[in-house]
Amino acid sequence: MLRRCTFALAVVGSIAAPISAQNQQRHDDKKPLVLASQGSFFVGGESKTVTPTPPAGGDPAPRAGLLAAPGEITVNQMYVQYQIPPRGDQHVPVVMVHGCCLSSKTWETTPDGRIGWSEYFVRKERPVYLADQVSRARSGFDPTPFNAVRSGSVPPTQLPTILAATHQVAWTVFRFGPRFNEPFPDGQFPIESVDELYKQMIPDLNSTLPAVNPTWTQMAALGVKLKGAVLMGHSESGFFPEQAALIDPSGIKGLISIEMPCPTLTAAQIASIAKIPTLVMFGDHLSDMPAGGVANWAASFDSCKAFVAEVNKAGGDAQMMHLPALGIHGNSHMLMQDRNSDQLADLVIAWLDKHVDSKNGSRSRPSPDR
Amino acid sequence: MLRRCTFALAVVGSIAAPISAQNQQRHDDKKPLVLASQGSFFVGGESKTVTPTPPAGGDPAPRAGLLAAPGEITVNQMYVQYQIPPRGDQHVPVVMVHGCCLSSKTWETTPDGRIGWSEYFVRKERPVYLADQVSRARSGFDPTPFNAVRSGSVPPTQLPTILAATHQVAWTVFRFGPRFNEPFPDGQFPIESVDELYKQMIPDLNSTLPAVNPTWTQMAALGVKLKGAVLMGHSESGFFPEQAALIDPSGIKGLISIEMPCPTLTAAQIASIAKIPTLVMFGDHLSDMPAGGVANWAASFDSCKAFVAEVNKAGGDAQMMHLPALGIHGNSHMLMQDRNSDQLADLVIAWLDKHVDSKNGSRSRPSPDR
Repeated sequence: MLRRCTFALAVVGSIAAPISAQNQQRHDDKKPLVLASQGSFFVGGESKTVTPTPPAGGDPAPRAGLLAAPGEITVNQMYVQYQIPPRGDQHVPVVMVHGCCLSSKTWETTPDGRIGWSEYFVRKERPVYLADQVSRARSGFDPTPFNAVRSGSVPPTQLPTILAATHQVAWTVFRFGPRFNEPFPDGQFPIESVDELYKQMIPDLNSTLPAVNPTWTQMAALGVKLKGAVLMGHSESGFFPEQAALIDPSGIKGLISIEMPCPTLTAAQIASIAKIPTLVMFGDHLSDMPAGGVANWAASFDSCKAFVAEVNKAGGDAQMMHLPALGIHGNSHMLMQDRNSDQLADLVIAWLDKHVDSKNGSRSRPSPDR
Repeated sequence: MLRRCTFALAVVGSIAAPISAQNQQRHDDKKPLVLASQGSFFVGGESKTVTPTPPAGGDPAPRAGLLAAPGEITVNQMYVQYQIPPRGDQHVPVVMVHGCCLSSKTWETTPDGRIGWSEYFVRKERPVYLADQVSRARSGFDPTPFNAVRSGSVPPTQLPTILAATHQVAWTVFRFGPRFNEPFPDGQFPIESVDELYKQMIPDLNSTLPAVNPTWTQMAALGVKLKGAVLMGHSESGFFPEQAALIDPSGIKGLISIEMPCPTLTAAQIASIAKIPTLVMFGDHLSDMPAGGVANWAASFDSCKAFVAEVNKAGGDAQMMHLPALGIHGNSHMLMQDRNSDQLADLVIAWLDKHVDSKNGSRSRPSPDR
């Protein structure tokens, strides 16, 4: 491990941007940010009738009244926050969706206080849409399965699982190092700020969702609403762009999947995906984790190599971007927050330029404002 | 009711901005937005050891592993998203905190697609900080009480209450009209877009919080971090600014409380609040709701009139801004989303200029970036 990492650091030195360019980048980040527009909205959502049955003990007034009468709530809506730069209509918008136990915070200010991919892409003239997964963060979740248990009408064994990844789990699943609090010597994650990442980790209620995840449906609908968008997913949501395309590809101009297992698709499904440019990204140390962990990154990588090959065999335009193969070493699972996050964003933007924007030309799209 | 509303509309006509000024405002909203900086971070948060005990049935791999081993999670952190305009250092920052069953979406794009208070204040050169309450949205919540019930170690009657206000409850508590789907004729809420408000309504887990709400503590800490801030709360969080000031007033330069009941404070507490300029706002139709509803707005208003009088008696600078008393009629509980939200924001900004900024002068504060 150590020998390899030392070698890796030497290679990184040879491909990193010159110091003057790095300083230029930092300087650019401090320039005022100009936006043509920004805002937030929801995609989808439907009414659900609820008949609350508070437990015998009741709740302190006046809150009890909020639960006391039957009525409708809205569920399965997806919250989206967007920023459009002045020349944003020259580029296909990018929709970014976070992974398990996280929110759209994933793409914002990094744990060590640098700008995240959302602002970076905006500064590179890309309209960016951050979606909180359905059942997470500002999208809310359906509380009725919990309240049914509380009222006694359903046994506690049927209470939905609430996933809460511990710091210990995050450390190894996110590949900060082989064991908790033992970082890889060449690790790119800003490990001195890992406590700030832990604050981003919030309970995951996806177990409350139906089999066809509404986030997939809303991502496809968002592509249609935007008259074309690139969908990007990470980890838990890594294959959501493809799942959205299998529901409705009509608004989807590109698929970017970052670090997840790739499922086996049917020939018909592969043929459908093959019509959309696809980028799959993986970081480093995929095979350097102890066996028996929560995630098996080497197996995930292999499954996605097979997926990329299948898509290309069907005439598609799919690319596996394995960062170590490009001479970029030490990247964690949270690569959009790694120290070289700007460099990785530039790789994605170059891919967008070549594989998506060149095929969609200059655009003039309506504002998503209602 | 109808007679009063007709009268109200006539009065509104006499005080509303001239049409040309309104057009100017709409034009300004379309101008590019320039930001000196933006980003997000967390305030507070502590580690909590969890010992997951999944039910006998287990979970599908690989998710089971996320729950299988004991470890730490982070709880009670408060997510904050900020934007600082170019001349933001000339003004005291404003921290906006949302109410029950809502998130910071409250302050963003309105249900009918206009810019919300957050962007409006930024365009008026105010640094704005939007905080998701602890236990809500991107701040996450502590899942351990739920998982304890699921594992069988705690009875289901001890499951925390999850508040989910129905559309029916929202309609009357937010004073859109006296009965569900019956709007006030002079109502300012964009009622044709009420479905978009319903999508903002997400489950409220504040019942999982300790008696001293961590949101109060983190709001006070945010004021200190910013070397001075105005705290604004609404509804459930309406009195949070005062609660924060009672914990640590050192970073709090102003208190803005919108539509909530005001509790009775001790003389010492009133004396502490009296050192900070305080604005209390209420909309219209406080006494026009059927008796027996979840909220009693007339009683809330009376309690806050008493609070304002107490603060002023103690030498403070407190103001009750009851909009109908200013000739502004028809405002709902969601007044920051009402059709005249820009006009109401201007009233708040004028209050800030006179009662806060004039006393704090030109400022030069460090960036909140870590």
